[in-house]
Formats: sequence, structure tokens, C-alpha cells
Amino acid sequence: MGEATKKARDARAAAVGMAKLDSATRNAALRALALSLLEQTEFLIAENCKDIMAARANNTAEPLIDRLLLTPERLGGISAALEQLALEKDPLDELVGGHTLYNGIQLRQIRVPLGVVAMIYEARPNVTADAAGLCLKTGNACLLRGGSLAVHSNLAMTKVLYEAGRGAGLPEFWLQSIETTSRDATTELMQLVGLVDVLIPRGSASLIKNTIENSKVPVIETGEGNCHLYVHEAARSEIIVPIMLNAKTQRPGVCNAIESLLIDECVATRELPAMLKALFAAGVLVHGDATVADVAGGMPDADRFFTQATEEDWGREYLDMEISVKCVSGLDEAIAHINRYSTHHSESMLSEDHAAIKRFFAEVDSAAVYVNASTRFTDGGEFGLGAEIGISTQKLHARGPMGLTALTSTKVLLDGDGQIRG
Amino acid sequence: MGEATKKARDARAAAVGMAKLDSATRNAALRALALSLLEQTEFLIAENCKDIMAARANNTAEPLIDRLLLTPERLGGISAALEQLALEKDPLDELVGGHTLYNGIQLRQIRVPLGVVAMIYEARPNVTADAAGLCLKTGNACLLRGGSLAVHSNLAMTKVLYEAGRGAGLPEFWLQSIETTSRDATTELMQLVGLVDVLIPRGSASLIKNTIENSKVPVIETGEGNCHLYVHEAARSEIIVPIMLNAKTQRPGVCNAIESLLIDECVATRELPAMLKALFAAGVLVHGDATVADVAGGMPDADRFFTQATEEDWGREYLDMEISVKCVSGLDEAIAHINRYSTHHSESMLSEDHAAIKRFFAEVDSAAVYVNASTRFTDGGEFGLGAEIGISTQKLHARGPMGLTALTSTKVLLDGDGQIRG
Repeated sequence: MGEATKKARDARAAAVGMAKLDSATRNAALRALALSLLEQTEFLIAENCKDIMAARANNTAEPLIDRLLLTPERLGGISAALEQLALEKDPLDELVGGHTLYNGIQLRQIRVPLGVVAMIYEARPNVTADAAGLCLKTGNACLLRGGSLAVHSNLAMTKVLYEAGRGAGLPEFWLQSIETTSRDATTELMQLVGLVDVLIPRGSASLIKNTIENSKVPVIETGEGNCHLYVHEAARSEIIVPIMLNAKTQRPGVCNAIESLLIDECVATRELPAMLKALFAAGVLVHGDATVADVAGGMPDADRFFTQATEEDWGREYLDMEISVKCVSGLDEAIAHINRYSTHHSESMLSEDHAAIKRFFAEVDSAAVYVNASTRFTDGGEFGLGAEIGISTQKLHARGPMGLTALTSTKVLLDGDGQIRG
Repeated sequence: MGEATKKARDARAAAVGMAKLDSATRNAALRALALSLLEQTEFLIAENCKDIMAARANNTAEPLIDRLLLTPERLGGISAALEQLALEKDPLDELVGGHTLYNGIQLRQIRVPLGVVAMIYEARPNVTADAAGLCLKTGNACLLRGGSLAVHSNLAMTKVLYEAGRGAGLPEFWLQSIETTSRDATTELMQLVGLVDVLIPRGSASLIKNTIENSKVPVIETGEGNCHLYVHEAARSEIIVPIMLNAKTQRPGVCNAIESLLIDECVATRELPAMLKALFAAGVLVHGDATVADVAGGMPDADRFFTQATEEDWGREYLDMEISVKCVSGLDEAIAHINRYSTHHSESMLSEDHAAIKRFFAEVDSAAVYVNASTRFTDGGEFGLGAEIGISTQKLHARGPMGLTALTSTKVLLDGDGQIRG
């Protein structure tokens, strides 16, 4: 039996104890976790240093090292997020529904923990605390598999949080990290049908794709966002550039930033010059089709910031200061293009035409469909969901920004008085 | 490109058209489907005859041939079920939720079809009509893969239903059956991430297990039921035998029948004799532990209807007139045993002790947990859900009897006025 199987069995046993805890105990434990990160800051930063030094020795890219880095300020932020989680409404106290059957049996549907939640992630040690907190709030046992780059940080954080949770009355094995750094441990984890209730990959597109393709355990797919902004012929001119710049450049590395711009050809000559000018000025590399190339042709900076788009560009998630731009013949082509190339995350149309808006809302097959607003709002906090597990781009179980209930299931309780079926 | 991939692509295109249909069109199409089965009875029965003759030539077991058989009466029943479906509430008309964000964006969460729903099933041609009807009601394109034993029946029924649907305005390829009878087609279907939104296996435990283990497409797991009845020390004597017989013998081949009986050892000598006598009289083979063997020892018929239980019996779904019986030390052992061996479908406890009932409800980890009633009520119709897709034994997306909403997802529409994120 490998480490993943052994730990999943222990997690299964822990899940029974986790499910029995009342709300007050779970929230007190969350506060204990928050405090432990502050008290153990020195130890956590010393362990994190080992990862940072190893990463530097391996010439790891600076942005990745920055993601890996723990500072007292960052630990303070992580701790504050756990404190905040303790204040949120308990997702398990909800009576989902109920009625009395024709034969007098009283039926109640209640919300329950999933059981054992496993997460696979990469070089962000903050995910360790985040995952532990979300699982604790929802009464689940938590099994983690972090990236090898962050191994010292993750194990140190797991140790600190685990002990704080134990001190606050959580059951043995409520939180565990898989220590084996080989790929075999991940492969093993993905086979554990019946021991692990859900597997959530958090990180790069390749991590998510690999998990979906190889996991036998149910997966919640998160994150990848090839988001579109579509400028319809009836768009209000003055909102185009502000929304485009906000959606593309405010934080280009996040999943709800746009990667592709569509514009009706009948307004292209009127609107595109100002749009391209703004993109070039912001330092965004434009991959444009032939019509866009014509407009860009005479513009200064086009040599630095314009390039011909290839078929591949329509499906790319740049996560950077790059964008693909295409002219379309109208609403039909725009909707068809989006439904073909999108990752079904977030798309926005700019228009004042009510009938066109109704069709865009009805026919675009994405988790969040916008009219006249930036796609950057697709976020649990912005939607008022409280703590966010991630943004689901699948259609089963949860779609779009996932709040705490995405880590729960339901069960039906039936209270009878001797009833048998006729 | 194999047949499954080609048909899934066509289904993907059809899903766009299906999602646009209004409720009246979908319901009128359902009535056209119902009528077509009556009008084409002769053709359907002639095609079914080919399967029946082939099955007899291969010495197929009689119960399987009975499942395969279509008669005018059975077709009438299938037709009536489609008529009934047309009368049910439209699952797509629901506004799931909504509010206005702090910045004035109006958010609405609506219910939408999943897109392409694929079902894999065995020798029951009625599933063809049932699946087509459920997908149509929920606005999904439907891709079917029936068993080779029923190939003529399934293709004939698909043809009749498809044409009736086309006549009623449904898009091209709204319903398709994969005709390739080799296993390769099923394997191919299971790889189609992005083309198929959900795969639902309907049939034997091995079909379901194979699908879960091999599908990359999300699966909804249905059906397997190793259900328990637990006679607690505080059980009311007079309800024990009636509930036990109903749960075991009324329809032993269905998933909500019990397969295992637990009884507190302190009431075993008082209650077991009457229970075993009733089981023997009903012709149920009892696989009992040592304590049960002691009680059964002196009873007439024990030689025919009693056998020693093995470890394997605790996990078996007999689907027949057989049951495993175990004495337990009390509530703790009963709950632990159920959570270990159950398929998490339905379990019932007989007790009048309020504290024990609360613990059983809270700690048994199954989709439906009963007190003082037969497990046979776990059913969409009995629960008042209307048409039933199946009974989910997984925790993600849907748990327990699944109504029409299990074939839907949601999407969030955001109506803005130029908002950008600060």
C-alpha cells in the first residue's frame, strides 16, 4: 500500500469524526489555525527558506519564486483569511428541503460534508492553509498533495495547522499532506475511488488537464479561462476602451481576464483605431486577423505590438499582455466563435440592442455571461459568495465561482412509523 | 474518427439548437414521440423479434429475454410515460437565484441544459425511449449506446423517435444511437471530454464500475444498493417482520431492496426466531453469523434456508431471495458496519429511542437514511420528484433519486452598464 492509499484510509476514518463536529467547534478550530500561523511564523519562514534556496539553485524563474515565498505579511494575510472563514455562515446548517410523503413519512433533505476532499496543487504554500480551512469549515477531512518545489513549506504548514487543529478538538488525521515527491503518489491518489470523494486540482492548465484525463475519482475542474469581449454593432462607444483595458490589463495573469476580442465588421473602422491605440499604449501585443491588420497597418507602434493571428491564437489563454482580435460578420458568428473556442468561463458583449442581448445571454454556453461589464467580476467575493473554492468550468455539481457549498453534498432523512411499500 | 466521435460532434451541434427550444415545443415533441411509438408498434415489434430470436438461438437466460421483450402493452406503457413527461413542470424555467451587486450589475442565475448527455445501457429497449424523453424534456442532445443483445430494437426505436422529433421541429441529430457493436465504440465514447457533458451508465454493477473506472467524461454513478435494515434494541417488535419482509421480498431484484440485516445482540434471542421463521417461510436464504446460526440451529427449514455467512457476504448485493444477517453489539458497531460495507444507497433503523435515531440519521453516510420504514421508498416517484433519471450513489452533483434537474446545470447572467473592476 502506497502513502496516498494509507493516508486516504486514515482520512476516511477522520471524515466520520469531522462530520460529527458542531459549528462552534469547527469555527473555534479555524481561529486556532489562524493563531498558529502567527505563533509559528519563524519556523514557517525558515522552512520556506529551504524551498526558496533550492529553487534559486535550480535557476527557477523569479515569478515562480515569488509565488513560493512566504513573508510575515503574507502569513498574516493567510491567518486573517482563516479568521474570516470562522465568521462565515455554516454551510452545513441548511435544511435544503422537505415534505411529508402521502403515507406520513417525514422527508428532510439536509446538507452534509462530502467526506474526504483531496487537492493537488503546485508551488503556492498559501493553498495549504486555504484548503485546510475550507475543508474544516465544511466538515471534510483534507488530503493534500502539493508541488515538490514547495515541499518544505507545505509540510511545515501542514504540521503547524494539524497540531493547532488537534489542540482544538479535531480528530486524528483530519489534515494530511502526501510527502512522496514522485509522480507515482499523484497517480495513486487518482485511483482511490471510494476513499476520496472529490479531487480538486488547483494550478496550471496542464495540471488540471492531467487530472481530468487520469483521475478515476470525481474531479472538479477549475480555472482555465479563454474569455472573450465582443463589441457588437450597437455598442456604446464610450464604454468600449475602458472595459477592454480593465478586462485585459488590470491583472492579465488571472483566469477572468480576457484573451480574445471580437468586433462586428460594420463598426470596425469606426471603433478599432481607438481600441488598438489603447492596447498598444498599454503594451499589449495584438494578434489580429486580416481586417484588424488593415486598420493597424498605418498606426505607430504596430511594428512592435501587432502580429498576424493564426488559427491557434483563437484558443490560446495567454495570461499575459497579449490578445487575439477578430472581426466577425455579426452576432451569429460571434456566438458560434465563442462557443467553439471558449473554455466556457466568462464572456462579455457590449451592446444596447435588447434583442441581441437576449440572444447572447441565451446562446453563449459559459459559466458567466456579461453584458456591458468587464469579465473581471467573475469571482466568489465579487458575486457575494464568501470564501471561494475556485471557479468551475464544468457543468456538473458546480458551475462558475464556487462557494463553500461546493464542498458539500446532501442526504435525505426519512422518519417513519412502520410504513411499508404497497 | 470513429462513429462515437462523429456522432458526439453532431450531438454538440444539435445541443445548440436544443437549448434554444421553448417549453411548448419540447412538450409538443414529447407528445409526438409518444404517438409515434403507438403508430409504429408493428415495425418496432418486428425488429424486436430479431433480437429475441437471436437471443434464444444463443441460449440467453429467460429473465434477460423477458427484459428484452417489447409487446404492444409495454410499448403502450412507454408511450404513456412520454405523455406524462410532457405534463411535468419545465425544469428550465427556474430562476435559481439572483441579486444586484454593490456596483449595480444585476446578477441572475438561471437553469440551463447540460448539453450532450450520453447513456450506456444494456438489454432494455425501454431505456431508449426513456433516455430520449428525459433529454428532450431538459433540452439536451441525446447520444445512446445500447447493448448488442438489443441492437435491432434500439436502432428501430431510435429511428422512430428521431423522425417523430424531427417532424415536431427538433434539430438534426437531436437523438442518435451508436451502431458499432464492438467495445471500441464504448471506449471511444468515454474519452470525449468537451464533446460529451455527462455519461450515465444504466444497468448492471459491472457496467457501472467499468464506466467509472474508464471514463474521462464526467459520470453519474447510479444504482448499486447494498441496503441495510438495523433492528435496534429499542425497536417496536410488531413492525420488525412486516418491514423486513417488505424491504427484502416485495421486489428482491431492485436496488432499494435490503441485502443485509443487523440486529442488536441483546434482543437477538427475543426477536430473531420470528424473523428467521418469516424469512424461511418466504423462501429467503439466510447467510448468518455464529449467533444467528445458534438461533437458526433448532428451526425447521434451517437446512434449506440457512448457511454460514462469510466475510464476502457483508458486501454482497444479492438482488435475489437471499440476505446476510449479523448480530452487533449496539449502535456504534451497526453504524460502523453500515458505513464500511454499504454502497451508500438506503439504510433503515427500527427504534423508538430518540437519541439513537438522531445518531443514526447523523452518522450513517448514505443517500437515504430511514427510521421505522422500509427502504423500498427510495424512488423518485415516491419522493415526489416526478420522472426519475436514476438513483445516484455518488456525492457530487446529485445524490439519491434524481429528478429532471440532474440533467441540467446553471449559468450566471450579469447585466451591467459599463462597470469595470477597481
